[in-house]
Amino acid sequence: MLNALEWNAEENSLRLLDQRVLPGREAYVACRTPEEVALAIENMTVRGAPAIGIAAAYGAAMAASAGRGAVVEALDRLARTRPTAVNLFLALDRMRRCLEAADAGNLACALAEEAARIHAEDIQANRRMGAYGAKLLPRSAVVLTHCNAGAIATGGHGTALGILRSAREEGKDIRVYADETRPLLQGARLTAWELARDGFEVTLIADGMAGALMSMGRVDAVIVGADRIAANGDTANKIGTYSLAVLAAAHGIPFYVAAPWSTFDLSLPDGSGIPIEERAEDEMRVLFNGQRVPDAVRVWNPAFDVTPARYVTAIVTEGGVFRPPYAFKRAAGSP
Amino acid sequence: MLNALEWNAEENSLRLLDQRVLPGREAYVACRTPEEVALAIENMTVRGAPAIGIAAAYGAAMAASAGRGAVVEALDRLARTRPTAVNLFLALDRMRRCLEAADAGNLACALAEEAARIHAEDIQANRRMGAYGAKLLPRSAVVLTHCNAGAIATGGHGTALGILRSAREEGKDIRVYADETRPLLQGARLTAWELARDGFEVTLIADGMAGALMSMGRVDAVIVGADRIAANGDTANKIGTYSLAVLAAAHGIPFYVAAPWSTFDLSLPDGSGIPIEERAEDEMRVLFNGQRVPDAVRVWNPAFDVTPARYVTAIVTEGGVFRPPYAFKRAAGSP
Repeated sequence: MLNALEWNAEENSLRLLDQRVLPGREAYVACRTPEEVALAIENMTVRGAPAIGIAAAYGAAMAASAGRGAVVEALDRLARTRPTAVNLFLALDRMRRCLEAADAGNLACALAEEAARIHAEDIQANRRMGAYGAKLLPRSAVVLTHCNAGAIATGGHGTALGILRSAREEGKDIRVYADETRPLLQGARLTAWELARDGFEVTLIADGMAGALMSMGRVDAVIVGADRIAANGDTANKIGTYSLAVLAAAHGIPFYVAAPWSTFDLSLPDGSGIPIEERAEDEMRVLFNGQRVPDAVRVWNPAFDVTPARYVTAIVTEGGVFRPPYAFKRAAGSP
Repeated sequence: MLNALEWNAEENSLRLLDQRVLPGREAYVACRTPEEVALAIENMTVRGAPAIGIAAAYGAAMAASAGRGAVVEALDRLARTRPTAVNLFLALDRMRRCLEAADAGNLACALAEEAARIHAEDIQANRRMGAYGAKLLPRSAVVLTHCNAGAIATGGHGTALGILRSAREEGKDIRVYADETRPLLQGARLTAWELARDGFEVTLIADGMAGALMSMGRVDAVIVGADRIAANGDTANKIGTYSLAVLAAAHGIPFYVAAPWSTFDLSLPDGSGIPIEERAEDEMRVLFNGQRVPDAVRVWNPAFDVTPARYVTAIVTEGGVFRPPYAFKRAAGSP
């Protein structure tokens, strides 16, 4: 299985697949300090809501050898990396509670174990989500996805792409269109590569082509991941997701969100409170062949948008498939 | 005024602004043969439906010194460059009729004059369209546009961007969002540059951001150009236009198309008959820093899509503003 994150217990270090240089190179970087992990999250060496939660947990665990204070410092630093994906904060909360409960003599071990638990639980959640989500798809389905909600955005298997994998394991014929996902091209660089590597028939399109593709009747379902889901089902995900959801609704195509409970933020009644990261202008200003958009031109570069729950046909979690009206609350089978 | 095309009568050559290297460089290339003009259209040194019609007309005129047969050959070659924009075929038809009517002794002069007439009429049409279209905008307006329907896509002034210029000349406060327009980034490379150069406040967004922007109430109108409009108002334009039109409708934002009569194809009752050019995969497969999307991934790269007339709030032509239901026919004030 494709591993974006690998913990080395002996060396107290985290090996990350460098997602910035894919698909050109399959390179790995080793993070040995919480600061290195924080930078890797910021510069998107590792990305994807579940994956950055897991990486941050390991990052906090790394600090244990330097004592309790170093772990607290690491937790604070890691919380300042990226604001939107709530998995990050949930993972750091778990590490903080583990820190408070652990004996001094057992600190490093307890924290590393908690991080590994977060990691393993995520893979398990994806497997369950895959099984639930696969049932939503017909025997032969063409699925459009956006950004990368795959094995490398998670502990493994993937959320949206995990559903495709599970559906195929069940014998379904799954073909995929991948939005390239500007500006950082996670669809073109990561999803297309990840799916082709697994033998899927995958076709790359530019983000603006999704509407035309749908109007031709060539899409049976849209499946995306999520970075934060509010109690009413409003879903923050990679910028461009909202446009896709509106287009899917206009064409009568089901629009599915796949996310583990760790992506839910039940402290928010709706999506209006989700903080949206705005990233550096140069992600859009730097063009091909060294060309630059002139400084006189402004740039708006939000990394995420919020899709209102009314556009979401169903939300697939490890606890099952939920349909509108959504009213997630802390109860059995819900986050 | 910004001139994408300049005819040099003494040298029998056409000087083109090289739109492939903008905004990095403002370079010009001289075409001295019909074949050079045809290649410049194919490789998008010159692009934009009205501009390629004008360029092709000059290309045909160039052949006159080699005689009538050479002109016929040139007309055939130029017709095989790009299939979607009908302005090209209309311009070549006019040149063919001019060829048939001209005396042998006067051939070169007659053809060059006809090409110059097509060029001048286009600028005039844009000015009229600008005046009509400006009235559609409030005193202060934020306009979203797609691709480049500017001075450099036409003989001058522009269609969609011509309306913005005319509105500003009337004292209106016009701010613009420009879709970057993947894969060839005409919005980021050309529209943003063209508008900033003219002192407009222009903000670049990725194509997938348009929906989020609209949902925030930050867009008063969408204005785009066109490559071919059928008798019922169905409009072929740069890929991504259809998505924008659906999104505008979902947000109650007016969606305007600006195009001269030379963009209308009244032989087509609706948009289903418009041929859609599919371009080379490498336009999407080649990524930044020499990265390539693996060959195992397929690519779909249509250059245009068709927006059904029901999504088009109004069509602005040099003959006035038309509203649905559209029923364009050969009559006074219509193409």
